[in-house]
Amino acid sequence: MTRIRKNIQRMAAYVPGEQPRRGGIAGLIKLNTNENPYQPSPKVLETLRAAIDGRLRLYPDPAASVLRIKLGKIHGFEPDQIVIGNGCDDILNLCVRAFCGECEKLAYFWPSYSLYPVLANIQGATHVELPLDGDFQIKAYPSLLAKLDGVKLVFITQPNAPSGVWLQRVEIQRVIEETDGVVVIDEAYVDFASDNCLDFVREYDNVIVARSFSKSFSFAGMRVGWAVGPRELIAALGKVKDSYNVSRLSQVGAEATLEDWCYFQDNVKRICATRERVTAALAKLGFFVYPSQTNFVFARPPAPLTPTGVSGLTAKRWADELRARKILVRWWDADRIRDFARVSIGTDEEMDKLLDTTSVILSLPRKRSGRAKNLGRSGRDPSTSSG
Amino acid sequence: MTRIRKNIQRMAAYVPGEQPRRGGIAGLIKLNTNENPYQPSPKVLETLRAAIDGRLRLYPDPAASVLRIKLGKIHGFEPDQIVIGNGCDDILNLCVRAFCGECEKLAYFWPSYSLYPVLANIQGATHVELPLDGDFQIKAYPSLLAKLDGVKLVFITQPNAPSGVWLQRVEIQRVIEETDGVVVIDEAYVDFASDNCLDFVREYDNVIVARSFSKSFSFAGMRVGWAVGPRELIAALGKVKDSYNVSRLSQVGAEATLEDWCYFQDNVKRICATRERVTAALAKLGFFVYPSQTNFVFARPPAPLTPTGVSGLTAKRWADELRARKILVRWWDADRIRDFARVSIGTDEEMDKLLDTTSVILSLPRKRSGRAKNLGRSGRDPSTSSG
Repeated sequence: MTRIRKNIQRMAAYVPGEQPRRGGIAGLIKLNTNENPYQPSPKVLETLRAAIDGRLRLYPDPAASVLRIKLGKIHGFEPDQIVIGNGCDDILNLCVRAFCGECEKLAYFWPSYSLYPVLANIQGATHVELPLDGDFQIKAYPSLLAKLDGVKLVFITQPNAPSGVWLQRVEIQRVIEETDGVVVIDEAYVDFASDNCLDFVREYDNVIVARSFSKSFSFAGMRVGWAVGPRELIAALGKVKDSYNVSRLSQVGAEATLEDWCYFQDNVKRICATRERVTAALAKLGFFVYPSQTNFVFARPPAPLTPTGVSGLTAKRWADELRARKILVRWWDADRIRDFARVSIGTDEEMDKLLDTTSVILSLPRKRSGRAKNLGRSGRDPSTSSG
Repeated sequence: MTRIRKNIQRMAAYVPGEQPRRGGIAGLIKLNTNENPYQPSPKVLETLRAAIDGRLRLYPDPAASVLRIKLGKIHGFEPDQIVIGNGCDDILNLCVRAFCGECEKLAYFWPSYSLYPVLANIQGATHVELPLDGDFQIKAYPSLLAKLDGVKLVFITQPNAPSGVWLQRVEIQRVIEETDGVVVIDEAYVDFASDNCLDFVREYDNVIVARSFSKSFSFAGMRVGWAVGPRELIAALGKVKDSYNVSRLSQVGAEATLEDWCYFQDNVKRICATRERVTAALAKLGFFVYPSQTNFVFARPPAPLTPTGVSGLTAKRWADELRARKILVRWWDADRIRDFARVSIGTDEEMDKLLDTTSVILSLPRKRSGRAKNLGRSGRDPSTSSG
């Protein structure tokens, strides 16, 4: 007899990118989970240090009032249109729980953030997978819009992950207008884009925008995300959220971050500049790279697997060979994306190392293999092991 | 048209105890949310300060491996029997999601922690309220055990809150044995008790014990809780939990806490000694106080409301009058507990102030009122307002 819900038994857990032990690995270049390569501002670190005292014995502000007021002022919303999460993933989870019950329809575009189907599984919701087109864009054809019938919740990642592309606003609007349910625009990476969708929150009564402090604000370790939307929907998220979901230090640090806006914007600009340079350099090496509006690039190595089974550099081998040389990038064994690897944008120095190492990998002798995905597991080439 | 799930629309949010603004209120004595009056150890604070550096840009360890290993060693369990939560409330929520689906039965004893029915509401689960007897003890009569039929999840608070009493182990065992579902023993306050129920985890395959760092370890502001149970059940909680639910600093701080065990045990001893003294002193003032095995006391003022509507000191008035004198305690307007207020154990100095102030309140002229619960809202006595 099992005591676990059937949907939980059946489902596979979300698999986060590899996180090395806290001490770290000497010389490792970590480009696999889209962290910001630049540290939080000195002022943020100083403010955090100053907040470490006996008050940690006290519960945090359940409403994160100060942070909500600050965010509201910056983005032009009232505090009661904003809710703070223990990371943006907490926000996504709250949305599922507030808007989509067991066996109700939860829709998400695919390929996109692999957490959405996991959240649907945990809730026991019915999956509605909306395929992106060949360019990983939304194309709101009637056949796609028909799938929105009866959907309670739609997740749209803008810019999308793992492709990094900016989705056409007009297509998103059609989805919003054709959906009776709630549309959550997950803007975790939007600070690296040249546009955003906050105006849809003002224009429509079924749109929530979710944001993160993890990427542009270098705060992944401290877990702060937020959402803005219509008061009624935000109040529902507030009912579902754990009262004390965001720690005292996380709140203090996030507030200090907003006080040091220019520091972080400068980092964002540097990361975007590095991204453009890396995109061009990879293209020069023969890679196909989607135009990215995020802090990562989604790249397909040159000369992919041929029908005769002779492998060029597969994305998996690229990732494995990089890993063997202490550079972590992210690869998924999933339809439509397994020919690509996702590379977070690090410092210029780190990205030079990535590019140089990639050149070396490209010049390695090519191997013959029945199935490309077995490369690196064959044992014939110790450099591709996961050690 | 509403886009919010019906169960969420209908439900009232959990109401946490009042949390003053971060700056605090000068001279306030906060005895309303069972925080530890003593600060985290100097070593913990020092360790936290040392951990504030550029690594905050990186995600935390999703598995909180170091913390799980340490907890396992201390309590005699393997790391894969342990899961870490963003506070103990996160653990309780994960249990609901892993073990009890929408419209399935969730049972909890009453009066007890008021979060349980809220978590059931959020999930859309069916409530099974199991009444405690007149002494706030479990009495596993056949009529009570019959209610456990088909229940997927039972919450037991040990020692119970808000009564503070230690529940008879033999009665808990009967509940465990009569339940096909999972029994979660919520031991948030157990470090202030002279016994615990960890042995039930070893003895039964359907028992999970949940614990908190918030109370005995003075870490409420940093949100760390944990659970121990059978591997299969803990693995299910791991599937449901957010990958990055516990921040880097929360993990580091919790680990440092375990390294400084004696400091915290000394505080626990002081709190228990203060608790015994306060219990005796309140009894001397004519209060009825349940024997507490926690860091709070549940006390009923002398001379409660009479049938003629002449009020003695009601619990509400006691709480209101204390509040007007900058002492916060917790009072609920709920059946079976509205004649009591719950008072967290503070420092000896704080509790002397509570006792002295209570003496003053007892000597105030009594008022006549149609309904005791309107006291303090009448506007006739500005000292009872919530200002």
